[in-house]
Amino acid sequence: MGKEYLMIPGPTPIPEEVARAMSTEMFNHRGPRFKELIEQLTAELKKIFQTEGRLFILTASGTGGMEAAIVNFLSPGQRIISLTNGSFGERMAQIAEIYGVQVERLASEWGEPLPYDELEKRLREDARGEIKAITVVHNESSTGMMNDLALISRLRGSHPALLLVDTVSSMGAVDIPVDEWGIDVCFTGSQKALMLPPGLAIISVGERAWARMADSGMKRFYLNLATAQEFLDIGQTPFTPALSQMVAMKKSLELYFSEGRERCYARHRRMAGATRAAMRALGLELLVGEKEASLTVTAVKKPEEIDISRLRAVMREDFGVEIAGGQGKLQGKIFRLGHLGAVTEMDVIVAIAALEMALARLNYPVSLGQGVKAAQEVILAG
Amino acid sequence: MGKEYLMIPGPTPIPEEVARAMSTEMFNHRGPRFKELIEQLTAELKKIFQTEGRLFILTASGTGGMEAAIVNFLSPGQRIISLTNGSFGERMAQIAEIYGVQVERLASEWGEPLPYDELEKRLREDARGEIKAITVVHNESSTGMMNDLALISRLRGSHPALLLVDTVSSMGAVDIPVDEWGIDVCFTGSQKALMLPPGLAIISVGERAWARMADSGMKRFYLNLATAQEFLDIGQTPFTPALSQMVAMKKSLELYFSEGRERCYARHRRMAGATRAAMRALGLELLVGEKEASLTVTAVKKPEEIDISRLRAVMREDFGVEIAGGQGKLQGKIFRLGHLGAVTEMDVIVAIAALEMALARLNYPVSLGQGVKAAQEVILAG
Repeated sequence: MGKEYLMIPGPTPIPEEVARAMSTEMFNHRGPRFKELIEQLTAELKKIFQTEGRLFILTASGTGGMEAAIVNFLSPGQRIISLTNGSFGERMAQIAEIYGVQVERLASEWGEPLPYDELEKRLREDARGEIKAITVVHNESSTGMMNDLALISRLRGSHPALLLVDTVSSMGAVDIPVDEWGIDVCFTGSQKALMLPPGLAIISVGERAWARMADSGMKRFYLNLATAQEFLDIGQTPFTPALSQMVAMKKSLELYFSEGRERCYARHRRMAGATRAAMRALGLELLVGEKEASLTVTAVKKPEEIDISRLRAVMREDFGVEIAGGQGKLQGKIFRLGHLGAVTEMDVIVAIAALEMALARLNYPVSLGQGVKAAQEVILAG
Repeated sequence: MGKEYLMIPGPTPIPEEVARAMSTEMFNHRGPRFKELIEQLTAELKKIFQTEGRLFILTASGTGGMEAAIVNFLSPGQRIISLTNGSFGERMAQIAEIYGVQVERLASEWGEPLPYDELEKRLREDARGEIKAITVVHNESSTGMMNDLALISRLRGSHPALLLVDTVSSMGAVDIPVDEWGIDVCFTGSQKALMLPPGLAIISVGERAWARMADSGMKRFYLNLATAQEFLDIGQTPFTPALSQMVAMKKSLELYFSEGRERCYARHRRMAGATRAAMRALGLELLVGEKEASLTVTAVKKPEEIDISRLRAVMREDFGVEIAGGQGKLQGKIFRLGHLGAVTEMDVIVAIAALEMALARLNYPVSLGQGVKAAQEVILAG
């Protein structure tokens, strides 16, 4: 027998109590019990988003939230800037293009910092406000890079472009003060730091974005947030929602707030620091620099001699630890360790120990225990 | 203490084993375990749909499936016929209009049979094949009417119009041979006859519709079925799916097939027959005629003296039985009893007994036990 450790960027493991809550009996989604539930969840999620704006829970994957951010607030023919340095940033640009937006990509290589200087320059040049929005993925889980939202927010300054932000793999795990940073639209998914199974997207909308909705010439129905607001006003959703995830969310938010936001952020910082220290101690090369390192996902370049699928197979089969490979152009080049949601420092130690043993089994020269030691030191330093 | 009986058209109650399966731990949706799961579910769902065509499982409400049926197979400016006699038929027409389709409604009053003669006439007149599709809701749960799909299929005959069919509240409960009837696109939701929580839409696509996909000028991303096919080819979904519902579906399909399709259909016929017989025995008026009566939802006109919300409240609070009111223009005029999915004849008897007592408590003249007796007779007649 062996325990299983899910150390991928998502879906993340769910706490036992949340799993049990998923077994909820069904009930009327147009009745008083649901009204109380959605009102409570909405209010609590706003605390995590640190927003007093609007917030909606959609029955969809995180990508449904991404599409909602595009189709509700942009118009065909409008010009936007898409900051891209990974597969999810690229996806956001692609959705906008599909819906007829003129996307100007300010791109960096996957794993490189965004071209902040270019962004500043383009916004400064745009005196007539032709750039209607900026899209960015806060935490590029494809590369383990955390883009600098605070800086982007400052660079945007008083420019009228909306800031549309993907925080799928960071919201809740990292401090993202949506209102303070003027993030106009911000979305996440249930299966990451919120410690729930996949199936829900959560999206916040500030008043500036909301006012643009009426002008959007884009077509939408399932993801129409105006309809979502009409129904939220009477404590409902327009369409039958994923009730089980919503009932379980009540439990997961209770766990979240009993740890507390600050302590949760600190735990994620420790897990990321421990993981990175361990990789360095083992002589493995990290994909992204210290300053931009993600606090929820760590990407590691593979040693020449190692085949990623074999490494993943040994870790899974011999030690019960599931890690992720690379996506898109990074496939076969990196492996990724997820450390977000209901994951603890001790799980990180397990993953590092398993990685050491798997490398040894694949005849890669590794000092057993050295990665674990480095992680322990980070954890002890707190 | 009291048990609760959910007798609305959906979400429907879920069996205990399915509820327990919803507590599944999380796992990698891009790994071998998921591949095996999605391949098994897809194959089994095709048996329920009676199709050898394509079939996709989407993370969305049933309405997501409805939108997928429109945006993947139609083009802006095309002309279609939308058959409408209830709120869901109207929704399907509305989605098509939003996406720029020229919708010709062939409508009947809510609760009246569709204008089949007009459909025949319009298709006969359309020698040039300008009508590109026909949309219809098989089971209008808003009115408790089951539209005659077999007849519509015959009327369509060799006309090239695609048949796009909503079977959200009937697929699985009623015999719908998708391939035999030439249904080009057919969708349902997880929370009805499939005895699962909401969160998944299931959509089948025949080759004729698939061939039109390439011509569709509609914009789509989250609901793009071409992408869904690409990923299904490698045992995945494009975006993180609602894993819990998919794991639980394995269990619910096991239960479904252990009862067997024919016996499941027969159970639904008995429950519908028993409910209708009971209403007549109590002197209550049914909204739709015998021939068009839904086998999964029964709509009952309210007696003059009775207020629907009070009736529903007494049934819920005093007897634990949740029934539905009317939707849209039927709000306040009818109540609806759902009898689909994991509901038995004995649950129907409970609901009828509760209705009798609730009516008595509201001082409506009712012969206690008369509705139950009529239902028992139908059940015994088998």
